[in-house]
Amino acid sequence: MQADIITIGDEILIGQIVDTNAAFLGKTLNKIGVEIRQIRSISDNKTAILEAFTEAQNKVDLVVITGGLGPTKDDITKHTLCEYFNDTMEFYPDVMMHIEELFRKYVKAPVNALNRAQAMLPSKCQQMFNHHGTAMGMWMQKDDTVFVSLPGVPFEMKYLVREQLIPRIKERFLLPALVHKTMMTYGLGESIIAEKIADWEQALPPHIKLAYLPNLGRVRLRLSAKGTNDTKLRHEIDALFDALYPLIGEHITGFESEEPIEMQIGEALQQKKWMLATAESCTGGALAALFTQHPGASAFFKGSVVSYATDVKQQLLGVQQQDIERHTVVSEPVALSMAKGIIRQTGAHVAIATTGNFGPTQGEADVEIGTVCIAIITPKQEVVETFCFGKHRERNLQKTLNKALELAHGYLID
Amino acid sequence: MQADIITIGDEILIGQIVDTNAAFLGKTLNKIGVEIRQIRSISDNKTAILEAFTEAQNKVDLVVITGGLGPTKDDITKHTLCEYFNDTMEFYPDVMMHIEELFRKYVKAPVNALNRAQAMLPSKCQQMFNHHGTAMGMWMQKDDTVFVSLPGVPFEMKYLVREQLIPRIKERFLLPALVHKTMMTYGLGESIIAEKIADWEQALPPHIKLAYLPNLGRVRLRLSAKGTNDTKLRHEIDALFDALYPLIGEHITGFESEEPIEMQIGEALQQKKWMLATAESCTGGALAALFTQHPGASAFFKGSVVSYATDVKQQLLGVQQQDIERHTVVSEPVALSMAKGIIRQTGAHVAIATTGNFGPTQGEADVEIGTVCIAIITPKQEVVETFCFGKHRERNLQKTLNKALELAHGYLID
Repeated sequence: MQADIITIGDEILIGQIVDTNAAFLGKTLNKIGVEIRQIRSISDNKTAILEAFTEAQNKVDLVVITGGLGPTKDDITKHTLCEYFNDTMEFYPDVMMHIEELFRKYVKAPVNALNRAQAMLPSKCQQMFNHHGTAMGMWMQKDDTVFVSLPGVPFEMKYLVREQLIPRIKERFLLPALVHKTMMTYGLGESIIAEKIADWEQALPPHIKLAYLPNLGRVRLRLSAKGTNDTKLRHEIDALFDALYPLIGEHITGFESEEPIEMQIGEALQQKKWMLATAESCTGGALAALFTQHPGASAFFKGSVVSYATDVKQQLLGVQQQDIERHTVVSEPVALSMAKGIIRQTGAHVAIATTGNFGPTQGEADVEIGTVCIAIITPKQEVVETFCFGKHRERNLQKTLNKALELAHGYLID
Repeated sequence: MQADIITIGDEILIGQIVDTNAAFLGKTLNKIGVEIRQIRSISDNKTAILEAFTEAQNKVDLVVITGGLGPTKDDITKHTLCEYFNDTMEFYPDVMMHIEELFRKYVKAPVNALNRAQAMLPSKCQQMFNHHGTAMGMWMQKDDTVFVSLPGVPFEMKYLVREQLIPRIKERFLLPALVHKTMMTYGLGESIIAEKIADWEQALPPHIKLAYLPNLGRVRLRLSAKGTNDTKLRHEIDALFDALYPLIGEHITGFESEEPIEMQIGEALQQKKWMLATAESCTGGALAALFTQHPGASAFFKGSVVSYATDVKQQLLGVQQQDIERHTVVSEPVALSMAKGIIRQTGAHVAIATTGNFGPTQGEADVEIGTVCIAIITPKQEVVETFCFGKHRERNLQKTLNKALELAHGYLID
């Protein structure tokens, strides 16, 4: 069961937006056993759209299209789909009623001709009712290929995929089991890992594929298996990963979780009934933002002091002038003092503190660019470590967040 | 001058990563006049790669490929490119020396056979030397189409594009002028705008294209022009946008800037020699993180208190118990009191404070989900406003950040 994803819109091609819709679709469809052959982003242009449809036709079982369903002139997906299917447009009264209701409730303006046209759909389509907008999803079939057209607004698209597309695909297609699992390693380059596990890799069965995903000091190893029995594949993958411990065991740090690491930390905190607070200099609030983006963070997160300026470190976190003078602001004593300060100020049980210089310029502290000190305090330990992440600012923030979360995770889960 | 972008890697198709490389390439190439025909993401699979190459051949002038250049078995782009060009591999001693140096300096391990293979490149390729990694960029030509292969690691890819690919493209191709400009509007739906500007849209010349980009209460209108003279196109676009003021003037909020709004705020603050601090409840540090992600933020940003818990609002920002009891934590008096508190604590001149309930549950304050109060204090004014952003948590954070930045921008730029 193979699918193509086609995302339509010049804003993708000129890089005005990043195509997160395609990633969402890839992940969500893959999870139920749909193999994605390709993702294709094309222009709002009839010829380009028809070409893409023709190329996908009969090569895949399913084509999922997003974008181009709005009411304005530049939105041409629906008409192009209608042309591709040799179909005509039909008026759907239930869609019209829904549009009128949306306008009454939210827009507080009369429905105009463009909105009315949103109630016209190809006669051969099975509509996928979009309760959150005026652009309906459409399901159409030609020969052996199903074409599904969805609005490009991420919120509406996700709703339609979760509530309507997934159940329909499960009903219509016989789906194989696809299983991915990703092992995290730290401290070895991909070529060195590949050398150490060469015999193991050579012996992988044909239905299981290995990928190396190197990034910022980490290499992730993903095994992807295809078969008919989900449980059996999971066992196979687990057994294969187990065999890696004798080869590279000391570099394995765990498995990539479906659940982000900050959520795992949150759960560990709640189990222990501990509250967390952060004191952030170089991470500038990004650590707090990671925790608070998820619902329910208030159950374990007290707050943060972002002490970007040195006097804020003193005023709000009680960092001593003499520690700064003796060790500079980027130092282990200052990181530790920030962590202690935020615990004192908020009554939290656990603190993460960061201070560093991400570059590109030297800053107040006379330390090498890329130097970061991370302190962690829990009711059981006080630790502080210094890292040199390199001279590239754009990577230093991500590296610091990763490392801080990894350390906290290590100390909280035992 | 048209180009295709091909990104290779199963991690894109299964949604394990979002393909930001394609967006960067689209934006960067478009800026110098390269029109992107399509972006295609495909599997690490020889047949899929060869098919994509063949499909692009002679349809476009340039094919930019990223990914699959690592040293491990799953990286097959280089060999597939070699096969597509009927070429053989050749040993490049200068690449080998560079790899050995990288290993001496950073990896501190001997170079193995897999790394040595990184110094083998197709004999017909012009190499694009990658000083930041072991995978070289390659420039190859077949008939009228140039194929460029770049590593998938974003940092290395961006370096090669900026320093080497762009100059080579400018040298090799005659490039047209492509100009995009995006007007921001607020408060009208796209269908209503389209109705109001229908005559204007109808009269657009054929070389200028209009796109409607609706998102979260805003509609952006993008004009894209293609021609030979950049300056002339810019004047044409400006004149067209000027003509929109009589039609929808009261809804136009400005133009999308190349520079993010938080940077514009930072510049305004520096001109006035004012320092900024934030007091964040519902935004949880995301506002501070927006400002501090850019280099140079310390010139205008003091810091932040993320007072996620109510007692932190009292302890660190001096919010009064009676204000909370009388008005709840999500109220204008509390937002204003947070803003005053952060000014008192940090000595900043300007404060932005947020308190709200993003959902999904009701929380302590008995307010409707999606209610957010934003307070802004400058040396010239104290303002606080309440907004109802709706019941969807994932959109409420973005809406609050947008609104807070828009308000601050409005009060600081006069």
